[in-house]
Amino acid sequence: MEFKLLKKDPNCSARLGVVSTARGDIQTPIFMPVATHGAMKPLTPAQIKETGSQIILSNTYHLHLQPGEGLVKKAGGLHKFMAWDKPILTDSGGFQVFSLPNKRITEDGVFFKHELTGAEIYLDPATATRIQQDLGADIIMAFDECIPYPCDRSYAEKSTKKTIRWLKECQNAMTDNGQALFGIVQGSVYEDLREMCAKEMRKLDLPGYAIGGVSVGEGLELLKKIVGFTTPHLPEDKPRYLMGVGLPEDILESVERGIDMFDCVIPTRYARSATLFTRRGRIRVTNKNYKRDFFPIDPSCNCYTCQNFTRAYLHHLFVSNEVLSAVLSAIHNVHFYLAMMAEIRYAIGEGRYPEYKAKFLAEYQRG
Amino acid sequence: MEFKLLKKDPNCSARLGVVSTARGDIQTPIFMPVATHGAMKPLTPAQIKETGSQIILSNTYHLHLQPGEGLVKKAGGLHKFMAWDKPILTDSGGFQVFSLPNKRITEDGVFFKHELTGAEIYLDPATATRIQQDLGADIIMAFDECIPYPCDRSYAEKSTKKTIRWLKECQNAMTDNGQALFGIVQGSVYEDLREMCAKEMRKLDLPGYAIGGVSVGEGLELLKKIVGFTTPHLPEDKPRYLMGVGLPEDILESVERGIDMFDCVIPTRYARSATLFTRRGRIRVTNKNYKRDFFPIDPSCNCYTCQNFTRAYLHHLFVSNEVLSAVLSAIHNVHFYLAMMAEIRYAIGEGRYPEYKAKFLAEYQRG
Repeated sequence: MEFKLLKKDPNCSARLGVVSTARGDIQTPIFMPVATHGAMKPLTPAQIKETGSQIILSNTYHLHLQPGEGLVKKAGGLHKFMAWDKPILTDSGGFQVFSLPNKRITEDGVFFKHELTGAEIYLDPATATRIQQDLGADIIMAFDECIPYPCDRSYAEKSTKKTIRWLKECQNAMTDNGQALFGIVQGSVYEDLREMCAKEMRKLDLPGYAIGGVSVGEGLELLKKIVGFTTPHLPEDKPRYLMGVGLPEDILESVERGIDMFDCVIPTRYARSATLFTRRGRIRVTNKNYKRDFFPIDPSCNCYTCQNFTRAYLHHLFVSNEVLSAVLSAIHNVHFYLAMMAEIRYAIGEGRYPEYKAKFLAEYQRG
Repeated sequence: MEFKLLKKDPNCSARLGVVSTARGDIQTPIFMPVATHGAMKPLTPAQIKETGSQIILSNTYHLHLQPGEGLVKKAGGLHKFMAWDKPILTDSGGFQVFSLPNKRITEDGVFFKHELTGAEIYLDPATATRIQQDLGADIIMAFDECIPYPCDRSYAEKSTKKTIRWLKECQNAMTDNGQALFGIVQGSVYEDLREMCAKEMRKLDLPGYAIGGVSVGEGLELLKKIVGFTTPHLPEDKPRYLMGVGLPEDILESVERGIDMFDCVIPTRYARSATLFTRRGRIRVTNKNYKRDFFPIDPSCNCYTCQNFTRAYLHHLFVSNEVLSAVLSAIHNVHFYLAMMAEIRYAIGEGRYPEYKAKFLAEYQRG
């Protein structure tokens, strides 16, 4: 895996780049839709490609529990299993495991209960790395402790140091088969901890770095701060991935601060609850105003849904509990995100990212 | 609408034909997948087309309740509303209304309660026809009384005569805008009633005739009998539609007895419960045997699902409660039906339908 930094916006830290993998190039900044169980909710791989997706994210935690990485490996790897031939990034399970109510964290790893069978399961850096290698991910995320928010400084410091140590264990566990390991910078809201973590992790010369421990309830203002004081300590020549972010406004602000990669369940999750993204803000298509609205969800959108269906039809599908509602809404929402990312890249290429961001947000927030 | 009878099998009553409509030709025998609420469950129109579907069925009863034919008409008709540009047949609501627990049948129509609001709704032949005209269906079904099974002769006779009278009211209610009205032959299991009904309805010189009051629990042997003694009384130069049928074996037997058109919810309904059709019979892919089965659902199938996914992946999706399970299964099941219909047409064209049927069933029932 290689990263090429193509251009930096002259007026902010936004970057245009390309991540080259054996399964194709990824234009950055990019958004990665989430296929938790190796399925992007209602969308087929053919539909996912039509949204403009270049890379998707899947979950170590979920796939380890069901169907198990052994089966996926036997199936020929996750790409073949789910029929997705472009790059896949897998998270390490850190975020999921640390969100569980009953877990036991040691210095070496985490014990937790299988959500269905109740069996005790253990994950540690070497295991999480091995699972991701078995899945065949193009990008493997380090097993880290995702620090909750808020968190006192002393716990954050202790946890961050453990995450650094665990990263080294992940790196040691990696066998060479063309997969790329990304480190995850933790440190909660503490600038010096983020700096220390980033500096320690840079020493390992990894192919990419993520910022974790965000999207845990800290809000946009703190997110902007964390990203703002962390990215300057990350290497310029490696991709930077902000984990679990987020809403369009979160992405726009973070791109300005030098982030290259994003993932979030929002487009598909919101789709299921009838919340659709438009250039003029979000709409809830179950609202009775849309019952007789014969315009597309977003008249400026060229996705399959907007090219063929009206708000009235989507409204009807949701009211009728037809699962096609989630399909058409997911197509639109994921396409909306990917189209926004393409515009972001274009604006950076033109050297006018702050102007683009301001214009987008003005229209988006007016609606 | 025109029907052209292209060929009759020399050894049975199977027919090859083509129904020409303003929205394209329909090769018969044909199977029509069901889009109850104007949505074929999880499939987009693009996916439905890929299954080989030439015409779909939608439901007057459901669309009348939600979103209402007025809204559909305002949207430009059902084709535009649901983005399906090939022919649509709408049933009249007769089957649904007569299945309701609380209804009041008069000589003129039926009163029933709205399943959500509790409001009293009235349907009669003229209203059901007008609704279907508003929906913009290419083929409109007459409003009939669907006789339950079993039914004593005296009720069946009285009801069948009412259905004949109602058909005339439907015909009178039709305004000329290129839509075709099909009559529905009733008569329960009674040969003389079916004959009488067919003969009376022939006098109206309609563009097509259906056999109704089947698929109501009578079983395959009785179904074969009913079809066998009814089709000889239907005109040769008009398409014959067997309503709500059925399983592959039901279709194969009925084609042999001269049926041209079928509809059924089975392919999509079975898909949701993990029951998949193969040339060697049905499989239930949630069965643990399929957990590590890396073959396609049906190795001889060329649908999107079989070309890209294994039984193990489908098993995983169902176990994980992923809605993509229903999508991929529906694509396969509907494609299975349409591929079978294409083979049926080919076999009739070659004049060897009984041989094809026997071979299909031998493999299907051995599996």
